[in-house]
Amino acid sequence: MGAGVAGLVAARVLARAGRDVVVLEARPRVGGRLFNAELPDGQPIEVGGQWVGPTQRQVHALLRELGLTTHPTHMDGSHIVEFAGRRATYTGRVPRLSPPALADIAQAQFRLDRLAATVPTGAPWAARRARRLDEQTFATWMRRNTATRSARAFLTLVVQSVFAAEPADLSALWACHYLAAAGGLDALIETRGGAQQDRIVGGSQRIADALAAELGDRVRLGRPVTEIAWTDDAVRVDGVAARRAVIAVPPPLAGRIRYAPGLPGDRDQLTQRMPMGRVVKVNVVYAEPFWRGDGLSGQANGDRRAVGTVFDNSPPGGTPGVLVAFLEGRHADTASRLSPRDRRRLVLADLAAYFGPRAADPVAFIEHDWADEEYSRGCYGAFTAPSTLTRFGPALRAPIGPLHWAGTETATRWTGYIDGAVESGRRAAHEILREESA
Amino acid sequence: MGAGVAGLVAARVLARAGRDVVVLEARPRVGGRLFNAELPDGQPIEVGGQWVGPTQRQVHALLRELGLTTHPTHMDGSHIVEFAGRRATYTGRVPRLSPPALADIAQAQFRLDRLAATVPTGAPWAARRARRLDEQTFATWMRRNTATRSARAFLTLVVQSVFAAEPADLSALWACHYLAAAGGLDALIETRGGAQQDRIVGGSQRIADALAAELGDRVRLGRPVTEIAWTDDAVRVDGVAARRAVIAVPPPLAGRIRYAPGLPGDRDQLTQRMPMGRVVKVNVVYAEPFWRGDGLSGQANGDRRAVGTVFDNSPPGGTPGVLVAFLEGRHADTASRLSPRDRRRLVLADLAAYFGPRAADPVAFIEHDWADEEYSRGCYGAFTAPSTLTRFGPALRAPIGPLHWAGTETATRWTGYIDGAVESGRRAAHEILREESA
Repeated sequence: MGAGVAGLVAARVLARAGRDVVVLEARPRVGGRLFNAELPDGQPIEVGGQWVGPTQRQVHALLRELGLTTHPTHMDGSHIVEFAGRRATYTGRVPRLSPPALADIAQAQFRLDRLAATVPTGAPWAARRARRLDEQTFATWMRRNTATRSARAFLTLVVQSVFAAEPADLSALWACHYLAAAGGLDALIETRGGAQQDRIVGGSQRIADALAAELGDRVRLGRPVTEIAWTDDAVRVDGVAARRAVIAVPPPLAGRIRYAPGLPGDRDQLTQRMPMGRVVKVNVVYAEPFWRGDGLSGQANGDRRAVGTVFDNSPPGGTPGVLVAFLEGRHADTASRLSPRDRRRLVLADLAAYFGPRAADPVAFIEHDWADEEYSRGCYGAFTAPSTLTRFGPALRAPIGPLHWAGTETATRWTGYIDGAVESGRRAAHEILREESA
Repeated sequence: MGAGVAGLVAARVLARAGRDVVVLEARPRVGGRLFNAELPDGQPIEVGGQWVGPTQRQVHALLRELGLTTHPTHMDGSHIVEFAGRRATYTGRVPRLSPPALADIAQAQFRLDRLAATVPTGAPWAARRARRLDEQTFATWMRRNTATRSARAFLTLVVQSVFAAEPADLSALWACHYLAAAGGLDALIETRGGAQQDRIVGGSQRIADALAAELGDRVRLGRPVTEIAWTDDAVRVDGVAARRAVIAVPPPLAGRIRYAPGLPGDRDQLTQRMPMGRVVKVNVVYAEPFWRGDGLSGQANGDRRAVGTVFDNSPPGGTPGVLVAFLEGRHADTASRLSPRDRRRLVLADLAAYFGPRAADPVAFIEHDWADEEYSRGCYGAFTAPSTLTRFGPALRAPIGPLHWAGTETATRWTGYIDGAVESGRRAAHEILREESA
């Protein structure tokens, strides 16, 4: 159940293998964390996950099969960076920071990538230093492995923008596992060559829409699953009887389903310890992408603003202009507690500080608070608190009787991304096909 | 809802104030984490929480009101300690360890108590160093604040026996908050003068039984709450309509209830980040308490055994003899994965190592795996992962519309103990009385 990409991919693989499948989805729509809203002129705009990167082979293969295409994230022009109270613009990869800060960031990244390379992506709990890494938060790792405040501010911004979490939320082992699954830090944070390189023409939710169209009336919307009854070889969910089930929702939500009989302690403890990140994503719409005329790319980062990350999120045609502003981790906490009016004021003030006064006067303001969504309860994904992967990690994917687990959090490559969702759906479906043919 | 001590106390206060109350309890019994089983001769034996300490004023006041009495935990004779591969016996407070180890433990305890004294028990997130403490695990704190392996092994054993968790599970701020709420480390770990000083005659579940008897048919058993519909001034739960509700279950279980409308992000994120500890509690029964004849108290601790803590848990009369063996944290993980037969073998081997070969031949073996209990999902209580108290702490107690939160995790004194449950029930009831009279 769950008509996000993972659940739909699993259903598609099973349906193509001739199995009877039903996809139960709580929401009145498919897509899960992929969600297209509309700009004032009717064009789609992504309020959920939206990017794909060049090394994400599973999602690219799926896009080709579905006949969907991508367009590059707009990044021509200078990027803005505000760091330690100083504002700079830069082009290319490396912002203009002080040489000691750059050196410290470079060595921290070197250490992190080297460490991540020791983490087996399918089994981070088996890494050589797994226990040591899992007993500390990533904030602790940062303190031990950086010399400057700037490097810590940089890594904090990275964690916020990659996980929508704070460095202190994450097990250092989960951070390394995530890096390993993506192929290194640059792959996660870069636009050109990295995870933010491309967008889906028509918006990312089209992936789910296309999968659902293929599955037809096998997809049942508005069917929240609250209880799953199971035996060794049968499952009954919300009136549907089946031989097996794929639970394709984030671990904390999977943990909220009532299982009869109840699941083993290991699995339950795991789901108690995998919270979701928190992000408020805001697409701010202007008649034109005015920043382009100023020689700016629309990309901005700041270590002291609620809006830590901004991208040009205009449609491929370039009109209207859209800046997408992310409030992540603690910034999402603060922003969520504000009235809509004050939150709008906060976001527009930050955008004006980055892009000048025209940014304060948008034609539309499309915000989405993912922690308030009953069937996501956060974004971008779930992570593990310290001591979770080493104690309960194998329970992330291990089937329990007829119950199989999918969702991007269970992926071994590009965990947390659309690509990981595709991998996980395929893997769960093949588990079932293998078991059923045995 | 929830007919543990917190829920029953809340209902009693409200009923005595003339309010209509109904207590919905999922289990077929009251008591929650307090649970009496029977020894072979029919005497009660506690398989859940069992001890009360002298500074726990709320529970003592309740015991008096209910006409219940206590008896001291048996501790005459020598205690056994196995530490760093060396076995020793001792009487009184301090085990015979090497002087450097003792000095290091003493200074670690001094630092910890001093730190805990800076944490306001009602608002740990407001402590002077709150953010710094909350960004690290207690394992990290231990590494930074001890010089010897022995001190770390000692503190690990303390964490296992106090929280049924590993040092790496806990936010260091939660550990300090817990200490502060108890009045210091000694208050938590001591028998005489501390939290393990006394037991309830008839077993601890009698507290809940007595409260339930007073409430009569207001207590409805076998009614698991899966959904709570609410408005600003009304609640509907499982067919019961009310003006307000007290949710008196551990935070992770409260998070699994479906609320309509859904709860704010802060509250939801909090419950995603408060996992339960894990313990398998085993009462091992012998014809007689043979260890007493050997001059032993029955109390044993070891840093390298699955059974890290043992107490004499015989009934007040001293017959039969009962040793209670705790498998906590990682040891509970390992033990839970064994077959019942292998788990029994493991526990008896450890008891025989502590108390000699007679310990390997019990007349009964009464084990309880709290992580497998659908309506507890762990014990002794929930704790916060790093970065949780400072981000979401106030959501622990803050009412949401007509929804009030109780349970020992919400207490400001003796959090995690029966005493804290009593406090929390009273506090929630008085919140309601105050609001209803306003």
